[in-house]
Amino acid sequence: MRKVAIAGVGHTPFTFAADKSSVELFAEAAMDAITESGIAAKEVQAINVGNVLGDFSEGQAMIQSYIADEIGAFNAPATRFEGACASASLAIRDAFMWVASGFYDIVLAGGVETSAKMGTPLATRTFAMAHDAHYEYPVGLTFPGFFAMLANLYTAKYDVPLDRLKHQMAQVSVQAHKYGVYNKYAQFHKEISVEDVLKGFMVCSPLQLLDCCPFSDGAAAMIICSEDVAKKLTRTPVYITGVGQASSGKLSAQKDYAPRIRAREVSVKQAYDMAGIGPKDVDICELHDCFSIASIIAAESLGFADYGKGGELWETGECDRGGRIPINMSGGLKSKGHPIGATGASQVVDIVHQMRGEVEPERQVEGIKIGLTDTLGGDGVLCNMVLEKGW
Amino acid sequence: MRKVAIAGVGHTPFTFAADKSSVELFAEAAMDAITESGIAAKEVQAINVGNVLGDFSEGQAMIQSYIADEIGAFNAPATRFEGACASASLAIRDAFMWVASGFYDIVLAGGVETSAKMGTPLATRTFAMAHDAHYEYPVGLTFPGFFAMLANLYTAKYDVPLDRLKHQMAQVSVQAHKYGVYNKYAQFHKEISVEDVLKGFMVCSPLQLLDCCPFSDGAAAMIICSEDVAKKLTRTPVYITGVGQASSGKLSAQKDYAPRIRAREVSVKQAYDMAGIGPKDVDICELHDCFSIASIIAAESLGFADYGKGGELWETGECDRGGRIPINMSGGLKSKGHPIGATGASQVVDIVHQMRGEVEPERQVEGIKIGLTDTLGGDGVLCNMVLEKGW
Repeated sequence: MRKVAIAGVGHTPFTFAADKSSVELFAEAAMDAITESGIAAKEVQAINVGNVLGDFSEGQAMIQSYIADEIGAFNAPATRFEGACASASLAIRDAFMWVASGFYDIVLAGGVETSAKMGTPLATRTFAMAHDAHYEYPVGLTFPGFFAMLANLYTAKYDVPLDRLKHQMAQVSVQAHKYGVYNKYAQFHKEISVEDVLKGFMVCSPLQLLDCCPFSDGAAAMIICSEDVAKKLTRTPVYITGVGQASSGKLSAQKDYAPRIRAREVSVKQAYDMAGIGPKDVDICELHDCFSIASIIAAESLGFADYGKGGELWETGECDRGGRIPINMSGGLKSKGHPIGATGASQVVDIVHQMRGEVEPERQVEGIKIGLTDTLGGDGVLCNMVLEKGW
Repeated sequence: MRKVAIAGVGHTPFTFAADKSSVELFAEAAMDAITESGIAAKEVQAINVGNVLGDFSEGQAMIQSYIADEIGAFNAPATRFEGACASASLAIRDAFMWVASGFYDIVLAGGVETSAKMGTPLATRTFAMAHDAHYEYPVGLTFPGFFAMLANLYTAKYDVPLDRLKHQMAQVSVQAHKYGVYNKYAQFHKEISVEDVLKGFMVCSPLQLLDCCPFSDGAAAMIICSEDVAKKLTRTPVYITGVGQASSGKLSAQKDYAPRIRAREVSVKQAYDMAGIGPKDVDICELHDCFSIASIIAAESLGFADYGKGGELWETGECDRGGRIPINMSGGLKSKGHPIGATGASQVVDIVHQMRGEVEPERQVEGIKIGLTDTLGGDGVLCNMVLEKGW
């Protein structure tokens, strides 16, 4: 296995309804990654794209082929990955494997979505197709409902009073906005308070409006290459040293395990083991905060807190800047935004920017060597990546 | 790179509207492949699934996760690939790369679609999203229109009179049905004549009804494993010795090249070169005959005939059983059927059955050592594979 590096990255603003197509948005992020890497588009040997709802938002399937054409990598093999919110992470993990194994030296990977364009009602209904379509979606399960159930299970299983959990959840959202306000790529540039969260309208009890991330339009992409190539292209390579992926099936298949998502524990162990590290070695983490409760659950399975104690990371500031494990210094899905098929790539790009010291001073974490990304697709596709600073 | 083998295969009947869900259909094919390989489902280390229209036919996205659960490979990393008709081929090629590189020893790969369930009008309209959605689909381009244009270009560019081309195209369909009639998995078990084709109603000039393949429901899957594992599991391993993939973008981007599809020539060269063979070494081929003209165009780019001479393969019987290069002895997409996301896997499965001498006597080709598959996704995602008999 060869060492695999990220040589260049690109990221569009995450926005409400964009005035560009998905092909154009991806091309924008891709051309930034290509330019930053100092290569020509025709040197891209393969293209991996995460995209979920393009068929519905723009009537565009098989988007990868049009992207290859748009960026000037005509005839490159191009592949679309769909694993709900984890789509871009699957695309990146695959690119990692292709480069690690020597099939390719230079792969463009990332994701794109224009889910804000669709409007929340249609996006919520179409995106709910990433639940089991035959038993669970037909009884009304959408993602707010799924995570509301996990929150209710959480209070019961870990004996955390609902009031306290709701306060912890609110703090998750408050911290996300505290950093998103500085992120130039973020959709929301507005600080919020615990009171704002707790007075928001109820989406699905106990989740209120500000417990929920938005639908967003945007893209993120990167050039993934071999160590040899990276050393020629950049002085600041970020290495992908561990990857993991697992899936869990529908909610009812997970019921003995919930609110833990078993796939996450399987996936992150793969990534940690491959990288030869553990949770204590992680200096910064971007995790999948599609709903505030999701952050708490994720932090536990990633090994940053005991089960039932995840919310304390936000209560104590342990996962704040300057704390033991800074989480979602980008603003996360909550404040940065959540263009579904692009989110996994955005997480990686932000950690690369952090390692290079290129993010806004108010959210820059110092002394980062190791980063972790965590992306949850639907109710059970998990992907994790360990990133290491290479200089 | 390790040698990569196919140890077991599975294939559901290809049908009009199926009474099973896509998860159930894929599981049926997968469990046959798993059983034939003599492994337990939990030994499957990764799952790659091709699927295109599941969001529309069943409201099911992220189908891979539910498949993993359904077959008893809970927590296996599972990935959905979408590249229109080539989706399963991309899934298989990826599995090949993962096994070749040593990441995994045993991967389940295949595809599934329930496009017949949707009915032809909706399937035609939704599947047309695998054209460029911003310039070409809005002016009315669907796949019958795309291939009709290629047929008209063909007569002009190669100076083949339209009457003769139509007769050649009819012979393509006649040969497909001649063998599909015996294939127990085929959707159509009915022979047709050149006269039947030429009196069919006009779909999009010059393509008539019997120049067009149907939408179908079905699945096909296989166990892809390392040579070492294969030797323990089966006496009849089929090796994947070459793979290729390329993309061409939208039709207007290909205009100087059409009716040739440049991606095919790039892709099949990769596959031939990796296998160290050329078109003369191929003993049997399953190629992408979504429309009769598509077969003629494909046969030329694969190297079986000069440009403008592809139709002569069918006129002379050179691509018939007993001819120089038997093509689509399964009945092809035309007669066997075309469950979009499963087609690439079905092509591979039929060649494996041919090599093992397991197909119906009326369509069995003797003495096969090397097979080639050819799958075209939309208007420009191409995937080719070279298969070699391993005993």
